[in-house]
Amino acid sequence: MPGRALVQWEENRRNAPAPLTVDVYTGGPAPEGLDGVVFYQVPYAPSTQGVDERLDMIARMPDLEVVQLVSAGYEHVLPLLPEHVTLCNGRGLHDASAAEHTLGLILAAQRDLPRWAVDQREHRWAPAPSRSLADQRVMIVGYGSIGKAIEDRLLPFETEVVRVANRARPEEGVHGVGELHALLPEVDVVVLITPLTERTRGLFGAREFALLRDDALVVNVARGPVLDTGALLAQNGRVRAALDVTDPEPLPVGHPLWDAPGVFVTPHVAGGSVTFYRRARAFMDAQLARWAAGEVLENVVRPGR
Amino acid sequence: MPGRALVQWEENRRNAPAPLTVDVYTGGPAPEGLDGVVFYQVPYAPSTQGVDERLDMIARMPDLEVVQLVSAGYEHVLPLLPEHVTLCNGRGLHDASAAEHTLGLILAAQRDLPRWAVDQREHRWAPAPSRSLADQRVMIVGYGSIGKAIEDRLLPFETEVVRVANRARPEEGVHGVGELHALLPEVDVVVLITPLTERTRGLFGAREFALLRDDALVVNVARGPVLDTGALLAQNGRVRAALDVTDPEPLPVGHPLWDAPGVFVTPHVAGGSVTFYRRARAFMDAQLARWAAGEVLENVVRPGR
Repeated sequence: MPGRALVQWEENRRNAPAPLTVDVYTGGPAPEGLDGVVFYQVPYAPSTQGVDERLDMIARMPDLEVVQLVSAGYEHVLPLLPEHVTLCNGRGLHDASAAEHTLGLILAAQRDLPRWAVDQREHRWAPAPSRSLADQRVMIVGYGSIGKAIEDRLLPFETEVVRVANRARPEEGVHGVGELHALLPEVDVVVLITPLTERTRGLFGAREFALLRDDALVVNVARGPVLDTGALLAQNGRVRAALDVTDPEPLPVGHPLWDAPGVFVTPHVAGGSVTFYRRARAFMDAQLARWAAGEVLENVVRPGR
Repeated sequence: MPGRALVQWEENRRNAPAPLTVDVYTGGPAPEGLDGVVFYQVPYAPSTQGVDERLDMIARMPDLEVVQLVSAGYEHVLPLLPEHVTLCNGRGLHDASAAEHTLGLILAAQRDLPRWAVDQREHRWAPAPSRSLADQRVMIVGYGSIGKAIEDRLLPFETEVVRVANRARPEEGVHGVGELHALLPEVDVVVLITPLTERTRGLFGAREFALLRDDALVVNVARGPVLDTGALLAQNGRVRAALDVTDPEPLPVGHPLWDAPGVFVTPHVAGGSVTFYRRARAFMDAQLARWAAGEVLENVVRPGR
């Protein structure tokens, strides 16, 4: 069912198949005349500031049939979606990007990279032995598509991986989250990569920290509220952390997390590297071609009724 | 041929097999009475400062039969070694440690980790898209034991590896260094991990930089003089670098490399993580047991005559 599509990237407009009219909308105030828009790719903007109508304008598209996200998370869009509209997400597009940033955070924490970066600024050459990643047992909490990509990159570092998901999948060697407390005392590194739901909010708090060994490392590449910030601060360096997401986010000037001992913070950049943009544009080309040809779309997370 | 041994780590003294007398020497001024020392493990000290007799004292050991290093490099010891003394090195002990630091340097450079570390210090939350490691072509110059360990860790990041060594080994897909110039324009990342010899001194200089793409990355985990510091500085950010070794080393306060655009420096810490120390102590236990039992030693790089 061709018609008018609204997409984020000029390249996708240029490559659009013939029967489809494609306009570019990159975010900010909504464009005039949303009538006739049948396919809407919500622009990806990891750190929106100020007024943004990207989601509100869905209500002003009477002809809409498909909303396409390039993020994996989609729960925030469901309440805004008319029943007959199909929702597709960006499952898989962030996997390589997020997994390599996760490895970067783990190696940074184990090999003191933040310390060397600050020493470089101050012209200080002060070598010292560091921790290592080899021989460490790493738990991945929320073992799905990105968790698997993290595991693939971890194993050649001579690590052992412990898989945990919401539900146990014994045939894949995945533990259920009910076993979390029994497993925590035996691991050196915990990677949080669950979706944020009411069940995972505050999943990692005082009790979970208390079960970890001295000097263990917790890596949060999920969403800020999955980890209890107060419980982390109370560790005062006994357990370390590497966080790409925080609660609150963005982290305000003066927040104690910035200076907490053993804590390394990156500003929610795991998913947004060039490899994501390259893969997202290629996916959009293919998805628009499927739409124009009346084929089944990929990554449908809620079919329209 | 048991007798007296001098080793670095107390643990090896404790574990020593019965016929062997073992004393601990950790560096600094030579101990009294070097007569009777038949096996000498030169203490590992990556950043020696001031007076150190670790190597000079070899000349004062009349009964010496074996010198054991725990570093891979051994060329500096050959001129000090009597002809009848066997030299063993620490081949393999640093591989996991050096390879994971190399990945840490590459990920730091691609994912802007030094920038986030400095931003954290200044309480600045300023996300921005970064480069990625996925889809990059990485050349390993000096493809040997550590080079292979680096490759094993690189491949799951969806990279392509180009192997270069002193001599071509077509059956292993290894290019000879004579092909270096033809290959450089096609790669995104170059990892230098050659030994320092008269052939590799200045191996990477103005001509090699000129052949690289804009924004390529050169990683030096070999020895400082393998890369021409002046040629790197002349790039002024056109090609980036991540250096665990520098020329001069240590890098003095005020040296222009500290503040060069696109350059990340760590202070020669690739080999010296806890995993090296754990593996080196285990190797020394086994080597002393072989010696005490009259068995063939491992890692002999020059047999005594």
